[in-house]
Amino acid sequence: MAKTPIWKSISTALSGEIAAGHYRAGDKLPTESQLAARFSVNRHTVRRALQALQEQGLTQSRRGAGVFVMAEPTDYPIGRRVRFHQSLQAAGRMATKKVLNLQTRPSDQAEAEALGLVKGDSVHVYEGVSMADHVPVALARAVFPAMRFPTLPENLVNFGSITEALAAEGVADYTRTSTRITAVIADATQASQLNITEGAPLLRTKAISVDDQGHTVEYGHTWFVGDRMTLVVEG
Amino acid sequence: MAKTPIWKSISTALSGEIAAGHYRAGDKLPTESQLAARFSVNRHTVRRALQALQEQGLTQSRRGAGVFVMAEPTDYPIGRRVRFHQSLQAAGRMATKKVLNLQTRPSDQAEAEALGLVKGDSVHVYEGVSMADHVPVALARAVFPAMRFPTLPENLVNFGSITEALAAEGVADYTRTSTRITAVIADATQASQLNITEGAPLLRTKAISVDDQGHTVEYGHTWFVGDRMTLVVEG
Repeated sequence: MAKTPIWKSISTALSGEIAAGHYRAGDKLPTESQLAARFSVNRHTVRRALQALQEQGLTQSRRGAGVFVMAEPTDYPIGRRVRFHQSLQAAGRMATKKVLNLQTRPSDQAEAEALGLVKGDSVHVYEGVSMADHVPVALARAVFPAMRFPTLPENLVNFGSITEALAAEGVADYTRTSTRITAVIADATQASQLNITEGAPLLRTKAISVDDQGHTVEYGHTWFVGDRMTLVVEG
Repeated sequence: MAKTPIWKSISTALSGEIAAGHYRAGDKLPTESQLAARFSVNRHTVRRALQALQEQGLTQSRRGAGVFVMAEPTDYPIGRRVRFHQSLQAAGRMATKKVLNLQTRPSDQAEAEALGLVKGDSVHVYEGVSMADHVPVALARAVFPAMRFPTLPENLVNFGSITEALAAEGVADYTRTSTRITAVIADATQASQLNITEGAPLLRTKAISVDDQGHTVEYGHTWFVGDRMTLVVEG
């Protein structure tokens, strides 16, 4: 039987340590020279082992920063009813939101059309980072009619959940009329907010949600990190 | 009233020419120096005007190649019933397929699992480029159980449509159990097949289709050009 190449034993050892939770999603692996010292090999052999891990989708190399353990992408169901906290909980992840910006300002044309307002009518705009187990998975911008939901901004801060903030405003249930999905490239700002590299692929969704009377309650854009979330449409 | 900046008049002139069909989707605009000569301005002013067009999503600059007029992205409904030809026809586009590769070979583990076969059972693999009005919009790879559909490869070539080729094999109807969507970056091969730049964002879908008996008839991967197709999920 052929002898296992050294790089292969090293990549097997490292993938075992990842599987065992010694290195976890988001962790940085030791540097090439640290690994070379640990396994008593040259850096070329270490690089070949790291390349194998990356090909298996277990790690990701970020230029100038090192090699990081990838998280398994989280499934995110897209349909009539989309709930960030519930979906992540169902996937066994902890959902949190970090508010980046919260303001009330006049609506632009697209916002007014989406919300059934007149351009210039006041809207609340929420921008934030959505996290799964403390790893950023998406940037969200949600726009709400301000007249209808006077205390929404405080509620968003207090609850950290759009569903709960809307419930506090009397919206017991809401559903999506449609979700439009495209792929875009992360710009420098998005990359820094999501802790990914500039140019990384993002899934951008655009959605309108209505209450049980058919009134639009939210007009939202979300940019999901392609490597961290898989949108799932059930047939 | 404030005077309109020169760059703005230029971008208005050019967007008018695009709207009028003087420049059409996929066309290359004149170079910066040609535009500078035409409008008797310096290249800095031209650049500002071109930037405005790009921000409006009317054009796309491709490094080293120039500035191109973007096509309006085509809406592509994703749900229980997904049909390439029908959807594009509904969007007023002509749908065609170019076969890149068609082979019959043993299935790998993932294919066998998806199709309910045993690893190594024979599958037909179709790879091709899907086009809307002759512009490449997606790369597709579809895997079919060979034993059940003995003459599928010929039918795919003859009909240029998966729906019609399956119908000829006795599959009157088929539906998707689910579609999994993520964002990826085009590699060099994909970029050349789709006539886009390497690193451009792609939407990758993975789907399983079943007949009315619940038997899997197709296991498919599609890579859509993000700028050219918008996946739409109805609520």
